[in-house]
Amino acid sequence: MQNSNHENFWESMPPLLPSVSIDCTILGFHDNQLKILLLRFKNTNSFALPGGFIDLNEDLQESAQRILKERTGLDNIYLEQFYVFGDKNRRDDKLQKKLMAASGLLLEDDHFLLKRFISIGYFALVDFTKTIPTPDFLSDSCEWYDIDKVPELIFDHNEMVKKALNHLRLGLDEKLIGFNLLPETFTMNELQSVYETILGEKIVRSNFQRKILGLDILQRIEKKMTGAANKAPYLYRFIGK
Amino acid sequence: MQNSNHENFWESMPPLLPSVSIDCTILGFHDNQLKILLLRFKNTNSFALPGGFIDLNEDLQESAQRILKERTGLDNIYLEQFYVFGDKNRRDDKLQKKLMAASGLLLEDDHFLLKRFISIGYFALVDFTKTIPTPDFLSDSCEWYDIDKVPELIFDHNEMVKKALNHLRLGLDEKLIGFNLLPETFTMNELQSVYETILGEKIVRSNFQRKILGLDILQRIEKKMTGAANKAPYLYRFIGK
Repeated sequence: MQNSNHENFWESMPPLLPSVSIDCTILGFHDNQLKILLLRFKNTNSFALPGGFIDLNEDLQESAQRILKERTGLDNIYLEQFYVFGDKNRRDDKLQKKLMAASGLLLEDDHFLLKRFISIGYFALVDFTKTIPTPDFLSDSCEWYDIDKVPELIFDHNEMVKKALNHLRLGLDEKLIGFNLLPETFTMNELQSVYETILGEKIVRSNFQRKILGLDILQRIEKKMTGAANKAPYLYRFIGK
Repeated sequence: MQNSNHENFWESMPPLLPSVSIDCTILGFHDNQLKILLLRFKNTNSFALPGGFIDLNEDLQESAQRILKERTGLDNIYLEQFYVFGDKNRRDDKLQKKLMAASGLLLEDDHFLLKRFISIGYFALVDFTKTIPTPDFLSDSCEWYDIDKVPELIFDHNEMVKKALNHLRLGLDEKLIGFNLLPETFTMNELQSVYETILGEKIVRSNFQRKILGLDILQRIEKKMTGAANKAPYLYRFIGK
């Protein structure tokens, strides 16, 4: 959505569903760290979750898929609604105006962006190695941050992250199968790291292995190719993926 | 919201958040049956979930509480969002017009009720014995229906019921404690009936009793007073309620 003609920017947007936005908690896993994708608004130090609006001719789910694709380059991401944020004072009009102005977009007081919005929280688990983070029109960076080093975010976005993580922790086994957080094949150590990071606690190796193999969701394939073949760990993949 | 002056009806409403409605799946338990509260539109045979809109000066959660209270008479109902229904064609404008006309409300083609809406699905478990079902301005009945005899509902409301029940089945133990589905005290049989009805399957009595007592969520109190004292079952209540 690059457009160098600021005055025509809003006019060039398709007709949107009023009052409703989407904000996405996009999580990936890399270097034994759970990471989250954040935008920084142009010429500011203000951070936000990637988000967007609903074109009138899109189903809600299509809008979420489109927004995810615009920021990550990924098609067909499995994503889930987890909560609707609807407090009447959840947004700060002054901050909103300031952030837009920093991109050269001056909002009149009756601009639709200054009206009340509810925001539908989606979250997605993506394969870190396949994403191509891409800033939107209002931001100059779109980058991964360690989940335990999330900066202060605008509006209620920190609360969104917190609620998304809580949602993820419920039914983690099923979600890890359905989602694309890990590459197609992975070691037992890598899988354990994912669990430990998301749950925020260490798990005893033998307990973890017994539990996870007991779920009958993993298929063991060949050993990982490394220099030291005899110490190479087995690779696994989720059955049915 | 009774108002006999139809022409002024819409004008008398407070300013509403555009594009967003709330629909409520309200479940109760009576005579060993899970029941759902449904409205019938005036002078029609069309049924719907109780619903409403969001006043601009209400938080989303406050709107849901108000709608619940208007239909059930109950304050402080514990309720949960479970899904946002946002398909672009989820509503049928012709049906919408017909249903309003049946109440004497003629809608112009550009009326806000004929624009696109997303609807936020809430569900609530209530104490059947305490509810006072009350029709809204557009309906002539508000009544309980057995969950396995839900009639055809307007728009995507049957799908809403289905999704609400799926949501309820996840984490049923926690939900039964947090909610108000049962009276303050109840017998083991009554509790088992709730589980069986919601899960849609019979449970062996001894297995159920062992499982539920193992959760440490029940307190056994005195025996239920009946004519045949020696056969009277024990009463229980949830600890901490």
